[in-house]
Amino acid sequence: VKRITLLTDFGTADGYVAAVKGVMATLVTDALFDDASHDIAQGDVRAAAWALGGYWQLYPAGTVHVVVVDPGVGSDRRALACNADGRFLVAPDNGVLTRVLHAAPDAHVVAITNAALLRPEVSTTFHGRDVFAPAAAHLAQGGALDDLGPRVADAVVLPERSAVQEPHGCRGTVVHVDRYGNLVTNIPGDWVGIDAAVRIGTTMTRVVRTYSDVEPGDLLALTGSRGTLEISVRNGSALERVWLSHELEVHVTSAPGDATI
Amino acid sequence: VKRITLLTDFGTADGYVAAVKGVMATLVTDALFDDASHDIAQGDVRAAAWALGGYWQLYPAGTVHVVVVDPGVGSDRRALACNADGRFLVAPDNGVLTRVLHAAPDAHVVAITNAALLRPEVSTTFHGRDVFAPAAAHLAQGGALDDLGPRVADAVVLPERSAVQEPHGCRGTVVHVDRYGNLVTNIPGDWVGIDAAVRIGTTMTRVVRTYSDVEPGDLLALTGSRGTLEISVRNGSALERVWLSHELEVHVTSAPGDATI
Amino acid sequence: VKRITLLTDFGTADGYVAAVKGVMATLVTDALFDDASHDIAQGDVRAAAWALGGYWQLYPAGTVHVVVVDPGVGSDRRALACNADGRFLVAPDNGVLTRVLHAAPDAHVVAITNAALLRPEVSTTFHGRDVFAPAAAHLAQGGALDDLGPRVADAVVLPERSAVQEPHGCRGTVVHVDRYGNLVTNIPGDWVGIDAAVRIGTTMTRVVRTYSDVEPGDLLALTGSRGTLEISVRNGSALERVWLSHELEVHVTSAPGDATI
Repeated sequence: VKRITLLTDFGTADGYVAAVKGVMATLVTDALFDDASHDIAQGDVRAAAWALGGYWQLYPAGTVHVVVVDPGVGSDRRALACNADGRFLVAPDNGVLTRVLHAAPDAHVVAITNAALLRPEVSTTFHGRDVFAPAAAHLAQGGALDDLGPRVADAVVLPERSAVQEPHGCRGTVVHVDRYGNLVTNIPGDWVGIDAAVRIGTTMTRVVRTYSDVEPGDLLALTGSRGTLEISVRNGSALERVWLSHELEVHVTSAPGDATI
Repeated sequence: VKRITLLTDFGTADGYVAAVKGVMATLVTDALFDDASHDIAQGDVRAAAWALGGYWQLYPAGTVHVVVVDPGVGSDRRALACNADGRFLVAPDNGVLTRVLHAAPDAHVVAITNAALLRPEVSTTFHGRDVFAPAAAHLAQGGALDDLGPRVADAVVLPERSAVQEPHGCRGTVVHVDRYGNLVTNIPGDWVGIDAAVRIGTTMTRVVRTYSDVEPGDLLALTGSRGTLEISVRNGSALERVWLSHELEVHVTSAPGDATI
Repeated sequence: VKRITLLTDFGTADGYVAAVKGVMATLVTDALFDDASHDIAQGDVRAAAWALGGYWQLYPAGTVHVVVVDPGVGSDRRALACNADGRFLVAPDNGVLTRVLHAAPDAHVVAITNAALLRPEVSTTFHGRDVFAPAAAHLAQGGALDDLGPRVADAVVLPERSAVQEPHGCRGTVVHVDRYGNLVTNIPGDWVGIDAAVRIGTTMTRVVRTYSDVEPGDLLALTGSRGTLEISVRNGSALERVWLSHELEVHVTSAPGDATI
């Protein structure tokens, strides 16, 4: 099975995604394409990195993940391919692989430079079709990673503020807001006990186990599906409830008698 | 062929859909995934039930339909799996299977409780990934439905108002508004003859056979693709033309000399 | 491999796309479905024709491309199937194949009329499910094109203004605006040299090689991925920068000493 996933900010209506698939289908006739998303906000490398972080390792070894959120297309930014924990990724060198490289620090990363493996004419505006698609096809067919180009040791990694443990709790940052308006933080869920107090800006709430521990419409915090603290509204949007400045800090104070922190 | 369809309200940009696919691809390496939709309005169980009703039976026997519109995730609502007319479905027990269970009243339904078949750690917020994906993979591989958990006879079914025949016509209700602004009713198309008068609120129109029986921009009613009466505007939106209260009634008066009603 | 792509204006939330896929999956159990797009603006045949033009030929011979942007459904507009350069297409006869037929003028085109190959009951509103899906399945299985119906020599082709070369440059028209706000023209990229002056309405810019030849936020023109001149803003939207009337003309004046024009 030659399974290839796609994550882009292309939308679909212009046919650009289909062009990428078409190039790969010609080179790997039996490829299976899984759309991850084409709705990443335009050029939002950080959002793409977060989304990718949630699925790349859930796919089996041998899967090829294509990621094209590429505001620097046509500049001298490099095109990368890598083997991380047995999964392959092709992506521009702009930080979109940050969470992959954190999770798999011994990933084997190369710069895609071998023109013989790319489309004969490479445009300056559409490397998804002309560079990443043929590179992904090469890997899906079992081609060697090192055929694509030379080893790279300095792939771009986005800086991230870490959550910090403090005497009576911890603090962290909102790192993603999802479709439901959940505010996803970088605070590990196992740092935080049930009933701990959570403050974001001037808004206070408490940690619960699950949404239904509060009434519909109530604010809450819990450990979300990525293993970190999330601030949510049951059947509603925390984004609409909380005033969010850029990189808003989240403070947690352990509950009385809480042994977790 | 192990074909699995997905219907969710996840959107795609957060990577949640890809996480569900990744879990299934690891368990069933040659699975084919068909996206039905990820654009169901958040938590709109009724809309999801309507959409599902239009395709689940068009797929061949053996298909696994995954439906995750699940505002009750993490509560004590059950997770269901069923065999309906040879197709398998996995979904939360919140009424999203209503139209399936109406069409296949002898469906075999179980509650998904066998932790050995689920992800080792089940989050409280993402059962699509942790419960429904592995359950679907089990079924796609030919695993027994009864392995997943005990038989259930009381799956949630949403109440629905039926259309009613009356001395000189019938009345029914708008049950769905689609992307084009078509108002889909629950009135069977074969209750209604060509040229019958249709009233919705204070708006009147007539039944025709096809859109092109009226001029572009004109209001009309016809039997739609689901076999029921729809109110439409040719190359336009009936939703923008008709004032819609919640569950607005539709009245049909048979045309003079009409033998259909 | 039986690969079928889909391009529609259905959106996905109503389940209409899944109905089309289900019909085809029943007829061709091992079909691979690639979503091109379901986000074409409603009834925008010209936009669909442009999108299709960018990928249909990148897929390998034998691929079946299903295109259902069909504001005339239920009227007497014909349904078409064709073999163009080894790829198959099924689509309404409304001009959506314009760019295919321009690129493959010797395409073999038939009208789909053989009811035995369609769904037993053909609705007046959903030929994607009832006509195009079974016709596409027939072709994906290797069925003969001529089985579908009689040869057609007069498929609808949309009129298009051509770009024109002039003594000191050329002029053309914006033919598509993409998701990024790029204004795609019909002026061949090889008519235009680097540094040529471009005027659109009252706005002036210059031709460069790649986005990064200007500063972020600056307007530019370059040869885009479809081989024609595009007017763009680096990391921004030209659509928001330029006042666009319908079919706005673009004028290019060759740079001093430019040998290209």
